[in-house]
Amino acid sequence: MAFQYLTNVPLEQAVEDYLNVLEKNGLTHQSEHVPVPLSAGRITAAPVYANICAPHYHACAMDGIALYAAVTFGATETTPVLLTDAQFVPIDTGDPLPDECDAVVMIEDVVQTEGGVLLHAPATPWQHVRQIGEDICAGEMILPSFTVISPAATGAMLASGILSVEVVKKPVVGIIPTGDEIVLPTDEPKSGEIIEFNSTIFTGMLEEWGVQAKVYPIVKDELSLIEAAVLKALEECDAVVLNAGSSAGRGDFAAQAIRNVGQVLYHGIAIRPGKPAILGYVNSKPILGVPGYPVSAILVLEYLLQPILNRMCARPMPKATHVEASLSRNFNSSLKYSEFVRVRMGRVQGRLIASPLQRGAGVVSSFAKADGIMEVPQNVEGYPAGSTVRVRLLRTIEEIENALVITGSHDPLIDEIAELMRRSWPEAAVASSHVGSMGGIFAIKRGEAHVAGVHLLDEETGGYNEAYIQKYFPDGGVTLISCVQRQQGLIVQKGNPHGIKKLADLAQPGMRYVNRQKGSGTRILCDYLCKRDNIDTSTIYGYDREELTHNAVATLIKASSADAGLGIYSAAQIYGLDFIPVCMEQYDFLVSDDALKLPAVQRMLETLKSEAFSQRIREMGGYEAANPGSFR
Amino acid sequence: MAFQYLTNVPLEQAVEDYLNVLEKNGLTHQSEHVPVPLSAGRITAAPVYANICAPHYHACAMDGIALYAAVTFGATETTPVLLTDAQFVPIDTGDPLPDECDAVVMIEDVVQTEGGVLLHAPATPWQHVRQIGEDICAGEMILPSFTVISPAATGAMLASGILSVEVVKKPVVGIIPTGDEIVLPTDEPKSGEIIEFNSTIFTGMLEEWGVQAKVYPIVKDELSLIEAAVLKALEECDAVVLNAGSSAGRGDFAAQAIRNVGQVLYHGIAIRPGKPAILGYVNSKPILGVPGYPVSAILVLEYLLQPILNRMCARPMPKATHVEASLSRNFNSSLKYSEFVRVRMGRVQGRLIASPLQRGAGVVSSFAKADGIMEVPQNVEGYPAGSTVRVRLLRTIEEIENALVITGSHDPLIDEIAELMRRSWPEAAVASSHVGSMGGIFAIKRGEAHVAGVHLLDEETGGYNEAYIQKYFPDGGVTLISCVQRQQGLIVQKGNPHGIKKLADLAQPGMRYVNRQKGSGTRILCDYLCKRDNIDTSTIYGYDREELTHNAVATLIKASSADAGLGIYSAAQIYGLDFIPVCMEQYDFLVSDDALKLPAVQRMLETLKSEAFSQRIREMGGYEAANPGSFR
Repeated sequence: MAFQYLTNVPLEQAVEDYLNVLEKNGLTHQSEHVPVPLSAGRITAAPVYANICAPHYHACAMDGIALYAAVTFGATETTPVLLTDAQFVPIDTGDPLPDECDAVVMIEDVVQTEGGVLLHAPATPWQHVRQIGEDICAGEMILPSFTVISPAATGAMLASGILSVEVVKKPVVGIIPTGDEIVLPTDEPKSGEIIEFNSTIFTGMLEEWGVQAKVYPIVKDELSLIEAAVLKALEECDAVVLNAGSSAGRGDFAAQAIRNVGQVLYHGIAIRPGKPAILGYVNSKPILGVPGYPVSAILVLEYLLQPILNRMCARPMPKATHVEASLSRNFNSSLKYSEFVRVRMGRVQGRLIASPLQRGAGVVSSFAKADGIMEVPQNVEGYPAGSTVRVRLLRTIEEIENALVITGSHDPLIDEIAELMRRSWPEAAVASSHVGSMGGIFAIKRGEAHVAGVHLLDEETGGYNEAYIQKYFPDGGVTLISCVQRQQGLIVQKGNPHGIKKLADLAQPGMRYVNRQKGSGTRILCDYLCKRDNIDTSTIYGYDREELTHNAVATLIKASSADAGLGIYSAAQIYGLDFIPVCMEQYDFLVSDDALKLPAVQRMLETLKSEAFSQRIREMGGYEAANPGSFR
Repeated sequence: MAFQYLTNVPLEQAVEDYLNVLEKNGLTHQSEHVPVPLSAGRITAAPVYANICAPHYHACAMDGIALYAAVTFGATETTPVLLTDAQFVPIDTGDPLPDECDAVVMIEDVVQTEGGVLLHAPATPWQHVRQIGEDICAGEMILPSFTVISPAATGAMLASGILSVEVVKKPVVGIIPTGDEIVLPTDEPKSGEIIEFNSTIFTGMLEEWGVQAKVYPIVKDELSLIEAAVLKALEECDAVVLNAGSSAGRGDFAAQAIRNVGQVLYHGIAIRPGKPAILGYVNSKPILGVPGYPVSAILVLEYLLQPILNRMCARPMPKATHVEASLSRNFNSSLKYSEFVRVRMGRVQGRLIASPLQRGAGVVSSFAKADGIMEVPQNVEGYPAGSTVRVRLLRTIEEIENALVITGSHDPLIDEIAELMRRSWPEAAVASSHVGSMGGIFAIKRGEAHVAGVHLLDEETGGYNEAYIQKYFPDGGVTLISCVQRQQGLIVQKGNPHGIKKLADLAQPGMRYVNRQKGSGTRILCDYLCKRDNIDTSTIYGYDREELTHNAVATLIKASSADAGLGIYSAAQIYGLDFIPVCMEQYDFLVSDDALKLPAVQRMLETLKSEAFSQRIREMGGYEAANPGSFR
C-alpha cells in the first residue's frame, strides 16, 4: 500500500505552465490542403487570395437588351428613342456583355415596335452590368489566416477560382482507456464490471472542439502494457489522453507510465473534482492523465486539455458565457481547491437561481442535466444560500430562462409531464430537482422554484397539503393545483419472501428497512403510520437509512440491499417488485401566484388536463386522477 | 419575351402559410436508431429510460478496506479499534462492496499493525460506497424527447445500459443546380461561364443546421430536364432546392417545373434580395425555387427553408442574436420589401456601429465579410445616418467588439496588416471598408471607425495629411500614425500599347480612362496633377467612370475595359500590368485619441513596427517606409 504525494498546483498556473513548456518544445498547428467544397467549418492556415476576378467578365445583370448607353441619351417618356436591331443585342442575366456595349436595359423597359425597340428613358453607362471584379478582384485577400471558413466563404473562394485551401490540420487525440475492471458498453454488466463510457464522452467533446478522436482498445492495469499503448498512441496521434489510473493508489500506473516515456510537469491540480490529473508530455506532444470518474474527467479535459488543443487548432479559446446567479442553498467548499459544481438553473421571480446538483464525481447524469457549472475559486470556503455566484453556462440563457423549475416531492410523473410538454412545445424545458415536500414548500417561499410537488398529510384532519399551505403561506400568494391520487405502499422483494403484510412487520428481527429523507411526504406518512400503529421506529433496522427518491428505495430492495421501503406503486412496478398497498394520498402541485401566468406553467396545466396525461397515468398504474390541472 | 407576374407576399405570412400547408399534408420528423457512441449532437425522438442502474452494484469509492460499519463504532484517536483480518477486506476503487460490508475506510486512515489494522475513527454506514443507482436508477428518464444529445448524455446512456437510441432522422435535402451557363468549379472559366458555387454554400449551411445535403448534377435550362431532375430528387430526398431559374424571365423554368410535378404556394416574396423565391411542394415535401444570386439564395434558405427543416428536425428555431446598432450612413429602402442588408460592425467610442456593405445580390464576398444582417422591415423607407437599427449577428458579439474598425483610403496593405495581426494574436480581427481618404476623415469625426487610411495632398504646401487634420480637427483629438510612402502612377495595359507616358496623354482620342471616386486621395491627386499640368479633365474620356479601389481600377484595365487609371504600384503588379510612376505620396493612419489605447489599435501599431511588416512591403514593391507605426 505504497503512497505517493501529489502536487496541488492552482489551475491557472498549471494551464499556463503546461502551454509554455509545450510551446517551448515546439507545440504549434499543422496545415493541410483540402478541396474548397469540403472546407466549411475548417480554419484557414494561410491568407487566401483570389485567383481570378468575380465576375470574371462583364456580366449582364438583367434579362433585356445590351447597348451602348450613348445611343439612348435624350430619350424621355414623350420622346422615346428608336433603336434598330443593329443597335442592341437581346441578352439574359449572366450573359457576357457584348463588345461595344456598356449598359443593359431591363426587358420591362423595352417596347417592341416595328423596325426595332423603343426606349422611354436614357440608359446610364454600366447600368445593370456586373463589371469584372465587382464582387472580388483577383489578388484580393478573401480570408486572413486562422479564420473559420463559413459556407459563404466557400462560395467566395470558388467564385474567385480557388479550388483548394490550406487549412489547419485537425489534431488527432488518442484516447487510451485503462483498467482491469472496465468493459466495453453492455446492457448486462457483471458485478464489479465498470462500463467504459468515458471514451465516448471524450470523443463527443473533442469533435465539438474540431478535433479528431482515436479510441484505443482497453488496456489492463499493468505498467508495461500501458506504457506500450502510450508509445503507440504517441506515434499515431498529436496528443494522448490516458484514462484512468491517474490517482496515486495501488494499481494507478498512469503517472509512472508517462514518466517512463516522457515527462510529468504536474501530478495533482488544485481543482475539485479532477485533482489527480497528470500533465505529462513528450517533446511538444501532451499526454494527459485523466481521472476515471466521468465528472472529473470532463472537467480536466475542458480546463486543461482544451487550451492546448485550441493552440494546436490555431484559434482563440472560445469565450464561455458566464452569468451571475443566486445560490439556492448553502454551499461549502475547500480552501485548497477551485471547485466546479454542476447546477440547475431557472429564472424565478426575476432572479436567476442556481441549484447545486449531486456533487459526486461519478455522477455522470448530473452533467447531462446541468445547466451550468458554478465556479468556486480556490481560497473561498463556500457561500451561504442567496449569495451571488458565478456560473459558466452549458446551455443558452434563453433555454434556461424558458425552463419550468419544479422541485419538492419526487414522482416519476414529473419526468412524464416534461416529456408530454416537449411533445407539444419543442421549446419547453423542465428543470426538476427533488428536495421532498417540505423542501418544496420552502423553495416556493424563498422564490427558488415555480412549482413544487407536495403530498403532506395533516395528522389532525387526515387531509393533504391544505393545512400546510395555510400554515406556511398565511398571506396566500400560492395556488394548489390538483394532480393525482397515488397509491403508497410497502415495496418488497419479488414474491415477498419475508411475508411482510403491514408496517409492524418491519420491526421483526433480520428485516432491513430503507427510508426516505426527513421532510419528504413519504417520510411524514411513514412516521405518522408508525405512531398511529404504536410502532417504535427505533426497533426498525435501517429506519435511519435515507434515500431521496422512490426509485432509489426500490433499487436498493431490488439489489437485496434492503427488504422493504415505503413508496409508490410505479416505483415497485419499474423494478418488478411486490407492492403491499397502504393508502391513497393526494399529490398536488404548489404554484406561486407570480408564476401562474408564465407560459411554462400554463403549458404544464394544459398538459395535466390533456388526454395524453390521463392515458400515461393509466399505463403507469397506481394513480387516480379526478381533475388534474384544476385549482384545488 | 413573355412575362409572368409574381406575388409579393410578406415574409412572415409566407413562412407561416408554407409551414401550415406542409403540416396539413403531413410534414413531421422521422426517426431512426443509432448506436449511442455515434449519437452526440443528434436529437432524441423519444424519451430515453435507463435500462440498468448506474452504478449497477454497490461500488467501493476509495482504495482502502471494506467492513461492517458497526464494528468500528467507538473508535477514537486515543482508543483505536483493532480489526482482525477476518473483519475487513482490502479493496480498490470500483471493486464491488463485499457481502456483509456496508462501508469503506480510506487507505490513508488505516494503520497496519500486528494481527490486523487499527482505526482511529468510526466509519458511518455507507461511507465511501457508491450505492446501486446513486447516479441513475433503472427506469428513470434520462432524456426527454427532442433533446440534443450532449457528450455527457452519451455517457449517461451507456452507464445505464443503453446501447442504441432513437433519434430524429436527418432530413435529406436535394440540391439541383440548373442553368445553361453554369459550370463546375474551375480556375479557368470561359467568358459567359458562371462557376456553380451555390450548391457548396447550401451544403455548408444545411450541415450547420444538422441536415444532410445531396447535390445533383447541373441541369440545362430545359423544362423537361428540370422536371425529371425534380422528380428524381423527390424520390430520394425529403426536400428539394431548385437553383435557379426562379425569376419570371425567358428561360426561367423553375416555377413551371414545380407546377408540373406539384403545387406552387407562392412565387414572389416581399423580401430583398430574394424576391423571386418559389414556395412549392408535393404532399408534405417542400420544393423551394431559389434565386441564382448567392446573396438572395442564402437569405431565402435562411428565412424560408430553415423553419421547415427545423420542424423536420423536431427542434425549435435557433434564436438568432439581434442587437441594436447605430447606422453609419443614410440607407434607403423600398416600402414594398423587407430588406436584408449585410453590414460590418464595430464598437467605436462606446457605440456599436453598423456600416452597410455592397448591396448587390451577386456579391458573395460581402456575406463572407459581413458581421451581421440589418433587417429593414417592409413599410420602412430607410433610415438616416445615426439611426438605431436592428441587426442579426453573424458572429459573436465578442468578436465584433474586439475588432479594429479601419476605413478611409484603400490599400492592399490593410489586409496584410490584418493578416500579420492575426498571426500574432489569433483573436485579432479587422473590419475594413473603403470610403476614400475624405470619407475616412469624416468617419473618424463621426466616431464610426478607430482608424482611417489617409493620403491627402495639400495643394498649397505639397505636404500630406497634416493640413487636412488641422482643418477638420481644429481642437485636436486625433493622432496621425506614419505608415508608408507609396508610389502612385498610371496603370496601363501590359506593354503599354498606347504609349502613354504622362497624364496629358490621357486626353488623346480613343483613350479610355477609369477614375477613382470623388473624395479619394487618388482622385484628389489626379485632379491636382491635371490642374497643375493644365489638362482639361472634360477632354479625358471616362474621367467620370469611378471605381472604389486600386484593384478595381487595375481589373478593368486588365480586362481591356479601360486603357489607363491612376493607382498604386502593387495593384499593377498583382495584375501583371505596366506602371508609369508619377509621384511618391505619404499614406498615414489617422487614429482618434480615444481609440489609441485600445488593444486592437496597440496591436496594429506593434504590427507596423514589426520586421514582418517591413519585409511584407519590400515583397509587395512600390512602398517605402521610414518609421512605420510612429506618431507623425
